[in-house]
Parts: sequence; structure tokens; C-alpha cells
Amino acid sequence: MVRDWSSVFDLGDTDHEDLLEHFDRAWFQGNEYRYLSDARHGVERGTAILDDVVVRGYPSMPRALVLEPAVHEVFDGPVAVEEKLNGYNVRVARVDGDLLAFTRSGFVCPYTTRKVATTLDADGFFEDYPEYMLCGELVGPENPYTEHDYPEVDEAAFYVFGIRHRETSDPMPVARRRECCVDYDLDPVRHYGTFTPAAAVSTAKETIRDLDARGREGVVLKSTDGRRALKYTTSAIHRADLEHAFALPFDYGRDFIFTRVIREAFQAVEFDDPPDRVRERARKLGEAILLPAVETVRAVDADDPVGETHTVRADPEVVEALLSYFRDKGLELAVERDRTEDGERVVTFTKVARSTRDKTAYYLSGGTIDE
Amino acid sequence: MVRDWSSVFDLGDTDHEDLLEHFDRAWFQGNEYRYLSDARHGVERGTAILDDVVVRGYPSMPRALVLEPAVHEVFDGPVAVEEKLNGYNVRVARVDGDLLAFTRSGFVCPYTTRKVATTLDADGFFEDYPEYMLCGELVGPENPYTEHDYPEVDEAAFYVFGIRHRETSDPMPVARRRECCVDYDLDPVRHYGTFTPAAAVSTAKETIRDLDARGREGVVLKSTDGRRALKYTTSAIHRADLEHAFALPFDYGRDFIFTRVIREAFQAVEFDDPPDRVRERARKLGEAILLPAVETVRAVDADDPVGETHTVRADPEVVEALLSYFRDKGLELAVERDRTEDGERVVTFTKVARSTRDKTAYYLSGGTIDE
Repeated sequence: MVRDWSSVFDLGDTDHEDLLEHFDRAWFQGNEYRYLSDARHGVERGTAILDDVVVRGYPSMPRALVLEPAVHEVFDGPVAVEEKLNGYNVRVARVDGDLLAFTRSGFVCPYTTRKVATTLDADGFFEDYPEYMLCGELVGPENPYTEHDYPEVDEAAFYVFGIRHRETSDPMPVARRRECCVDYDLDPVRHYGTFTPAAAVSTAKETIRDLDARGREGVVLKSTDGRRALKYTTSAIHRADLEHAFALPFDYGRDFIFTRVIREAFQAVEFDDPPDRVRERARKLGEAILLPAVETVRAVDADDPVGETHTVRADPEVVEALLSYFRDKGLELAVERDRTEDGERVVTFTKVARSTRDKTAYYLSGGTIDE
Repeated sequence: MVRDWSSVFDLGDTDHEDLLEHFDRAWFQGNEYRYLSDARHGVERGTAILDDVVVRGYPSMPRALVLEPAVHEVFDGPVAVEEKLNGYNVRVARVDGDLLAFTRSGFVCPYTTRKVATTLDADGFFEDYPEYMLCGELVGPENPYTEHDYPEVDEAAFYVFGIRHRETSDPMPVARRRECCVDYDLDPVRHYGTFTPAAAVSTAKETIRDLDARGREGVVLKSTDGRRALKYTTSAIHRADLEHAFALPFDYGRDFIFTRVIREAFQAVEFDDPPDRVRERARKLGEAILLPAVETVRAVDADDPVGETHTVRADPEVVEALLSYFRDKGLELAVERDRTEDGERVVTFTKVARSTRDKTAYYLSGGTIDE
């Protein structure tokens, strides 16, 4: 069946043609599919098309630098406060009877698809809601994308923060989404309650202090219909981001670095830090920036590999498909350990940060910068 | 007289025409002149043409991130080690009997021209070297461009670091330039001696430690013929730069910020900082980054002006010409104080940092970032 894409995406003839041209093609288990790597014509980045099925991308979410005025700017009714987790954003949909896991960019990840199949029992949900997708954070120590550990997660867990119609992207209201999680035994992200905007601000601030002390990421505020959202993060995650970026300084965008510092400055002002607290925040920030950079320069000097190291554990063919995908994307992988445990292949590998390695080596060998 | 620019700049017909097209036009005391705002066809940024006189720009100088290998890479003979001062780069030339001062970009600055006229007695030098220019650092508390104070400079001083043929840009050898300074009573930048490359590295490192402790900028290493040069700076100046940039974070390039952090990382490794010294360096770096940013957010919140504040002191018409030039360039100036002392006009003004003011105000009023 060929669908009328113009009406599916609610776009005129020229726009829908332009949109379709911008989809890239990829394969999953012998089937070709298309995915959109950048938002275009109001269609979200990460939107995928598999034959006649559309799985919309997860919408980008505005961030507050100063919580209080932003909450009043964005919301005019009750606001739900939920935890923002630090893993990776995954949409799960059932297509032709198969549970598929899409990363943020629209890639059907063989590894995540398999993890979700073993972690998530969503059959009941998809029986009743076949046209919906579960949007959640995949969290846990063994994955190929992120590093953050949570004490409550041993291996991998999928926490639902949204349920949306896969083709229109319409969200379920927050209360109904939470009921669905109860009814179908799905793990929801933590919910702190639903409040007036003013009370949401104070709850969010208190929550941020608590999450920060525990090294967790932040909060997402949502209108009860699930249509408006606002995120806000802890100092702990700003530092963790900076540590990560400055371990690979020439591979990370300078905007990435700048934005984290700016978040800290606005937070210090909004949280009314006294002078010694600002100084403490500044010192920790400096440590998050310089210490990993120094370590990396020393590692390159010692000829040690630099990059992001991950461990994955799955059936051999799933691991192979994942590593092939990374290599096809042009990543250089350094395999640190590769073994079999209980029939599963367990690989620890580094995504080599070539820019950091090469530029650092250039300066260490006497290369200069013309300024 | 119309000159053969093709031969002056040693360029083919097409190239010299392209070059001339890229000169901008400006006026000084009723005379039009041209200046080049970006290096092009091997001709330095800041090169100026006044009728048939060419004043070449000061060449850009490579920077070492790691001193030892860079010195061995750049030099194969004796190396002079001199101090790099933190003021602004000025070239002084005598054109049609008038001493003119050019800023780095090729602008004939009325304020600097007057300061140089009162600070520098170069008549004797230009009698003997009419076709040469004095290249130096203008240092001192009252100037419209920079802020650094030196205990040895009360008002303004001009320290010579180069003497070059104004049209060919050929430098005098270091020893001859230093003799000229003695012969004509010009102030030279501090010279630490001339060494083998290996000894230059250790002298430069020692000097950097000493300058750093005194909050000074750094060193320039030069081949004795004055043709090759290499600069290297202290942690103190990296921090001072960051303090300056993070007081106006949305007006400074993100590259500016990134590069200072990187310099610190390589320096910590080359200077073999033990762990507690790296941590100390990191904390100071963090303070240099976050504290001024927090102060600026608070200032905008309190409706105080943010920007770079300078004080200038000169004859009223010179001050007026300078302020007009800034306004013509599109700068918004907030005059904080304007008074007359001993017939001179003394103005303290802020170059308003509009981007920082406007973006900060936007976030403080609840503006969000879409990410």
C-alpha cells in the first residue's frame, strides 16, 4: 500500500515531497526503512517510515535557564512534575507484530530492540493500543550510548515518560499515561505530583536540590494534557556533561561546553547562592572542566586510546549488527575486551575520539596555532 | 603619485586587484586612507595605505601549546626570549612628517596617536629610519581598548618589540633592534637573553613561572633575525581572559573560551603539575569562569549596565574623535563620567555588551532554549 503522505503529515504537495526527499534509508533484519535525521516542515527529527507505518520522532523540549519565570511563561494551568533520567531516549512501537526500538535519530537499534524485548513486557499494552508508541528512557550500565549508572538499575530498565500516537504524535494526557503504566505493569518515570504553576516551581526547585545531592539529572514539567513541556537540570549533570566533553575536548562542540556553564550561572542566581556556595560551585565546575582534559592529554602522550568506552551484552548476532552499524557510520572502534558469557557476547569497546587524539598528538609534537 | 601596487605587494595583476578591493576606507584629520581588515594574499591584516605610503600590518604569531617540542619545531638556531605584555599592539610610523599610531586592525587611532605623541620621543629615530615603523605594546591604565595594569606604568607607556620596514615588513634583527632602542632612548620590552633552543625552553619555562606569579602575560621567542616567532602565555592571563569573556558571555566567541581552557590543560601536562596543583589550577579556572558570569546575570537582573568600561584622558577634540569612531562602528556607549581636568577631557564609558544584556534579560524573563 502506498499512502497519501501529504495527508499523513498534513503538508502541501511541495512540502511533503521535500520532506520525503530528506529521509535517509537504512535496513533492519532485511527490511528497508526510512528515517529523518533533522526536523523539517514541522515533522520531528527521528521520524521513521517502515512500509506504510509512520513512527514519529520524539519532539524536542524547551529548556528553562531560570525556572520560575519560564514556568509562568509556558504554563497557564496545572503542571505535572516528573523526573528526567539520564539514559537514552527510546521509542518502542509494534510494527507487523514486532516490537521495535527507535533511538532519538530514528535508527532501529538492534541492540536496544533486543534489550527492550527482554526488559519490557508490553504485549498487553500493544494489544489494546496498537497504534501508539511508548516513549521512555533506557537506563542501565551496559549500553552502547550512555554511561550514567542508577543504583536501582542492575542491568537495563525502560522508564516510560510519554505515550503518543505513533502517526500523529498526539500525547496521552499525563494522568491517563500514568494509569496505563499501572494497568499494563510498565515502569513510569517518577512523578512528584501535579500543581499550580507557582507550587510546581517550588516543588521543582526542592526536587532539583535533592536530585543534585544524589547526582541525578533533573526534572521535566508538563501540562496535564502532555502537550507542553519544560526541562530543567541539576548542577551535578552539568558537571557530568562537562567532564564527559572535556575528556574529548576536540570532539565535542564548543556550544556544548558553553551552554553547561551558562546553565550553572543562571542556576546560581535563581537559587540565590551565597558567595561561598557560588565559589564552591565554580571550583567544582573548574574541576569538571580541567581534570578530564589534563587526563586526556596525558593519555594521548602515553599512546593510550581516548574515546567513549561502553560495554554491551547480547546474542552474538545482535552485538555484531550493532558494531557493524557503528563501523558503517564511520566510527573507529577499539575493542578492549570480547568474551562470551552464558551464550551471550560481551564486548567492551571504545568509540575512538579521532579529533581529540589527532589534535592533541599534533600539539604534543610541537604543532602551533596561528592566531 | 599612483604606485605600482602589484610590485609593492609582490603580487600578480589579478591578485593585487583583488587585494585592493578588500581594503576599507576611513578618514583621519581630513585625509582618507585605506586599511585591510583581514589578511589576504599574504598581506597582513591591518595593512594601511595613506596616499602612496604603505604601512604593513603586524604579522600574526604562532602560539605553542607545548613549549618544548614547538621550540624545536620552529627554531634551528639561537632564540631570543622576551616578555609579552598585555596591552594593545600599536605600530607607529611617520607619514608626511606626522607621527601616526595604527591599531592592530589598521585604524589610525586619534587617541593612541595623541598618547604616543606625548609618551614617545621618536623624532631622532625617524630622522634616521624614515621608512621604518616601531611596533610595540601600548600599556597603561587609561586607554579605550584594554584593562591590564602594570605597577611600573602610571599613565601610558610604549614598549618596542619590533622595528620593521613599513612597506616590506622586513624586521630588524633582534640585536640591532635592541641597539636602536638604546641609541634613540626608546623603551624596549624586557629581554631575557638569547639561547640555544634547549636553553631557551628552560629559560622560557622559568620565566613563565615567575610571570605567572606576578600576574603577567607571557613570553615571545624569536629567531635572532626577527623572522620567526612563537608565543606562550601564563595561567594568570588565561584566567584573566576567561574572567573578561565570562563577564560578557554572549558577546565573546565560544572559541575564545575553549582555547583558554585547552592552553591550561596542555600547560598542566608540560609543567608536570602534581595532582594537588592540577586541582588548584582547575579550581581557579572554574572561579575565573563562573564568578564573573554570575555577577553579570545579577547585574542584568538589577538593570545595571554590562560591558567593558574604559577611561580615556586627552584634549577634548581627541576624545570626541575617538567616541565618534566607536559610535560610527555601531557600538553603544554608556558614559559613566565625563569631566575636565587641567584642560583635558576625562571620560569613563562602557562599551555596552548588547548581546549579553539582551539574552540574559530574555532568560531572566522566562525565555527558553529549544534543544
